[in-house]
Amino acid sequence: MSKDPPRVNGPRLWQSLEAMAKLGATRRGGVCRPALSEADLAARGLLRDWATAAATRLEIDPLGNLFFHRPGQNPASPAVLMGSHLDSQLTGGRFDGAYGVLAGLEVIRTLNDLDIVTKRPLQLVNWTNEEGVRFSPAMLGSGGFAGVYTDEYALARKDSSGESLAMALERSGYAGPARTTGRPGLHAAFELHIEQGPRLEAEGLTIGVVTGTQGIRWYDAEFRGESAHSGTTPLAKRRDAALGLAQAILAVREIGLQEGETGRATVGSARLFPNVRNAVTEKAVFTVEFRHPDQARLVAQGHKLKEHLAKIAKADQLGYSLKEILTLPPLTFDPGLLGVVRQACTRLRLPHCDILSGAGHDSCNVSRVAPTAMIFIPCRGGLSHNEAEDILPEWAEAGANVLLQAVLDQAQT
Amino acid sequence: MSKDPPRVNGPRLWQSLEAMAKLGATRRGGVCRPALSEADLAARGLLRDWATAAATRLEIDPLGNLFFHRPGQNPASPAVLMGSHLDSQLTGGRFDGAYGVLAGLEVIRTLNDLDIVTKRPLQLVNWTNEEGVRFSPAMLGSGGFAGVYTDEYALARKDSSGESLAMALERSGYAGPARTTGRPGLHAAFELHIEQGPRLEAEGLTIGVVTGTQGIRWYDAEFRGESAHSGTTPLAKRRDAALGLAQAILAVREIGLQEGETGRATVGSARLFPNVRNAVTEKAVFTVEFRHPDQARLVAQGHKLKEHLAKIAKADQLGYSLKEILTLPPLTFDPGLLGVVRQACTRLRLPHCDILSGAGHDSCNVSRVAPTAMIFIPCRGGLSHNEAEDILPEWAEAGANVLLQAVLDQAQT
Repeated sequence: MSKDPPRVNGPRLWQSLEAMAKLGATRRGGVCRPALSEADLAARGLLRDWATAAATRLEIDPLGNLFFHRPGQNPASPAVLMGSHLDSQLTGGRFDGAYGVLAGLEVIRTLNDLDIVTKRPLQLVNWTNEEGVRFSPAMLGSGGFAGVYTDEYALARKDSSGESLAMALERSGYAGPARTTGRPGLHAAFELHIEQGPRLEAEGLTIGVVTGTQGIRWYDAEFRGESAHSGTTPLAKRRDAALGLAQAILAVREIGLQEGETGRATVGSARLFPNVRNAVTEKAVFTVEFRHPDQARLVAQGHKLKEHLAKIAKADQLGYSLKEILTLPPLTFDPGLLGVVRQACTRLRLPHCDILSGAGHDSCNVSRVAPTAMIFIPCRGGLSHNEAEDILPEWAEAGANVLLQAVLDQAQT
Repeated sequence: MSKDPPRVNGPRLWQSLEAMAKLGATRRGGVCRPALSEADLAARGLLRDWATAAATRLEIDPLGNLFFHRPGQNPASPAVLMGSHLDSQLTGGRFDGAYGVLAGLEVIRTLNDLDIVTKRPLQLVNWTNEEGVRFSPAMLGSGGFAGVYTDEYALARKDSSGESLAMALERSGYAGPARTTGRPGLHAAFELHIEQGPRLEAEGLTIGVVTGTQGIRWYDAEFRGESAHSGTTPLAKRRDAALGLAQAILAVREIGLQEGETGRATVGSARLFPNVRNAVTEKAVFTVEFRHPDQARLVAQGHKLKEHLAKIAKADQLGYSLKEILTLPPLTFDPGLLGVVRQACTRLRLPHCDILSGAGHDSCNVSRVAPTAMIFIPCRGGLSHNEAEDILPEWAEAGANVLLQAVLDQAQT
């Protein structure tokens, strides 16, 4: 281990990122690649071309997850997995997900250049529907893979037009065969990703060693009032569901602020009915999301939310409902693999720190079935889920070098 | 004038109302008849059948307004107009508009029964797109008729699918020929309507003599923030347009409450972008409506709104815009015709009062080109723009008798 560690081809990685960003590119510099959309299918096609040229063999699973196999010296031994997702938010950035996939590809290309055949096989993965924009819940492909959901459940999820994941896969040719039983497990799994927060850049660090993720709670909520003519109905006689929504948005903010720096509380989606300018709102439906590294605080915030909505509903004579639709507990990645990532940073002389992930990732699911670790690089201004999302080429290269080191460490033993 | 005044056929009127309410009927007892929708076209067809059977002659104008002519003894003299609109809100009631049209039809049927040919001709009108649900602005057909808008402007209005009024009229066969110049003016115009407010019922009165209408101001407003990942972006670093919307909804309510009993302030429509549960809101667009009988108070409320939005935007680091898209000043109906309506109530021994209309009506437009008056009957609980909107058969009959009296008074001179 005293000789200089191998390095990826930074410019080649950057060119691949730029070429991929053209697929589904938006006018404001981002990408729009919802799962299995035309743009996502184009992205999958480009990845297949590249991965095939890099001498890997494609296996598609029933959820359309793509696994590109690179043989090892010992074909029977459990593989080392790396990868992320090519799908994006509707107004998403160029690097969220795509960076992890293409850095994995760059690791394979580099090993090819160096004529290195690892002892263990490698797998490069592209997970289906990570973002959850088209099909809910998010991280659906990795969730099915890890047994969080059954394949049947995942395939039956429908998009807003009523098309199921099964139909979308069938139509696009990405419905893979049923899983074979007794498939070998994974030896280790790595996901390289942008931080999606401001910390690494602010502290001048190049690598974040991701110790775990926040827990997440998703709610669907609703206020019910009474539709009425806006010109004739006195304010005192209204039961206006829009007023309930307004107070709920502010209450959710307040609940989040009470958690200090750590608080993440969001009303991201809301709709009014009938939603016309001259009628009092009969119904307001909206979403609430809390994220927190401490499960007890997550539960407490859920209780506070219920209290607030009940209070608002009572004061404004509204009906309300609150339904928890997703709960992901906080999660810790594999301590052994975290040590491997730290060691890689040290060998490469890259300034790094331990960091907690604010976002959910496919790795949260994968960690249920394999030792898993994540690696972060900074992103400009902490911006993500935004068309202005950006990274520096040197960050991209540094992260891929850490991935290469960590993968080699695991694949050569 | 000492003999008993003629009376309409109350049960026949009620049957007509019930038959009409079947067209576009909703499961919750209301109607959904946006302008020139399939249901509205069916309603127009039924009205045509009935009016033709009542020996009137149909004239369709370029905006699809329907005028059913009943000849008078003196064909050249200006006519007396009565009517309202058959279109409805998306979740509208059975009587808003339809009552005024069918009561006008009942007046004609009654005159036929009594073999009365009035000196002046009568016209029964059904105005196009009163509600403004499909095409904005509201009261479009009467606005074009009265010269508030040019026909070209009105015909170019588009619905949310991009179809223009012109296209919708063409497709449905309701695009009438261009207006003939020098058409005779109207001698008087009456519109019978439900109150859409709680006052008449609460005070045990059967008829409201509508002295005028509130002024109306419509605004389109918008906050602009920054889209960001909800899991990673600390609350302090967010520029969340949904927070702007929430504060704006409460501010509009506050502005309305400062006007006391008279205040009518509404945010009826709002949309978030990108409107997904795990992204901070980049943009919130919403509507604001103020109504008030005093023009100076309307202007003052507009100023307050601007101040509030500017303050919210500054505090939350948001951009904002505010655009006034409609302004209708308060309006007073024709004092002579109001006297005629009061006299009719007295003759019929109906308890009545003067009342101000909270809603805008086609009569606001018509009053620009003809002496105009409106007559209100109560509605249950003041409910309107609501599928539960309801009236009593005796109110319906009483209102139609007042209309008959008033029309006879004007048509026989």
